[in-house]
Amino acid sequence: MKKVVLIYSGGLDSTVLLYDCINQGFEVRALSIDYGQRHRKELEAAAQITEKLGVEHKVADLSSISTLLQSSLTNPDLEIPEGHYADENMKITVVPNRNMIMLSIAAGWAISTGSDAIAYAAHGGDHAIYPDCREEFANALDKAIQLADWNTVKLWRPYVEKTKAEIVALGHRLGVPFENAWSCYKGGEIHCGKCGTCVERKEAFEIAEVPDPTLYEA
Amino acid sequence: MKKVVLIYSGGLDSTVLLYDCINQGFEVRALSIDYGQRHRKELEAAAQITEKLGVEHKVADLSSISTLLQSSLTNPDLEIPEGHYADENMKITVVPNRNMIMLSIAAGWAISTGSDAIAYAAHGGDHAIYPDCREEFANALDKAIQLADWNTVKLWRPYVEKTKAEIVALGHRLGVPFENAWSCYKGGEIHCGKCGTCVERKEAFEIAEVPDPTLYEA
Repeated sequence: MKKVVLIYSGGLDSTVLLYDCINQGFEVRALSIDYGQRHRKELEAAAQITEKLGVEHKVADLSSISTLLQSSLTNPDLEIPEGHYADENMKITVVPNRNMIMLSIAAGWAISTGSDAIAYAAHGGDHAIYPDCREEFANALDKAIQLADWNTVKLWRPYVEKTKAEIVALGHRLGVPFENAWSCYKGGEIHCGKCGTCVERKEAFEIAEVPDPTLYEA
Repeated sequence: MKKVVLIYSGGLDSTVLLYDCINQGFEVRALSIDYGQRHRKELEAAAQITEKLGVEHKVADLSSISTLLQSSLTNPDLEIPEGHYADENMKITVVPNRNMIMLSIAAGWAISTGSDAIAYAAHGGDHAIYPDCREEFANALDKAIQLADWNTVKLWRPYVEKTKAEIVALGHRLGVPFENAWSCYKGGEIHCGKCGTCVERKEAFEIAEVPDPTLYEA
């Protein structure tokens, strides 16, 4: 595997995977999706990190479809819940079918560029409340992607067995500038420290026993 | 099955399916995709036909991703080939992974609206040059869509065993205003009569022995 399209949110997991791909000598193209998310900071983070690395980066603008997809991440009238990422009340942050939409666009770009795979940083802790983070879902979609063109593009998910703490540990070894990767769903000036992804991020650094360079409000 | 999201191009096949759904008493929402296609006329046709029927119609604007997807349908520097739809030279009209992108957005809307299925007018003659028209592709994607949410949305393809001529015959029985449905890839004022879809359209009316109300240049 030499040529990949990376689904790149600008968050912690996909930034580690970006460094991981480069470290393995892959030709990487990074794709971010603008689905009208309130946390625009992650798109800025993605642009800055890829620019510094000299990696081709594109943003697919899907903001026009956000009215089709009910979620607190795209609807400013809905409140972002606080608490743990895996809690029941986090369901409101689910963007219906977001992963398939992202992956299908990435597959289109991968086919156009003759890439071998889509690199996707889905990990072990992702599945609890998001139906489209389930292993069965990814396997079915992998199969569909492999059939979408005469040349085979695979869905490559190297972190699927890892915890977020293990991803942090790997990123630490690869010298990832964690302070530049954005996680917070609220999208303020600095990480809120209280929303689901902030709680999960903090926890991962603690478990991995890696110093957390993130500035949190709380 | 009562509530469906129809993939609606404004072309002949999906217009017949729209009438078919209404005839069966389904609650229909129609989704068109603006992927920067040159034949914008099909989007106008879709808007007019749904408005007349009082069907909710949305256009997902994906024109910003057309630069990711190499195809003569989206790139004005490439010429649209003439000849039969199934010819080898038509491959340049393939928009990489277009079907998966369309279907994944339709699935997102279907999940948001609590719909039972995505109605998709793929038919028997579609598979020859388009890899993502293959039965195996659709089956794998159907499985992925069913797993994309906790509620099950199915991919419903009632015309998969039909020829285009059979679809024309069905539409004739349902009183479809064929003259309003747009097929031509060139997107001029009237149908060119020479591009792949025009040739296929003409042929279907001839085989079905249904009067063709389409105005062709040639």
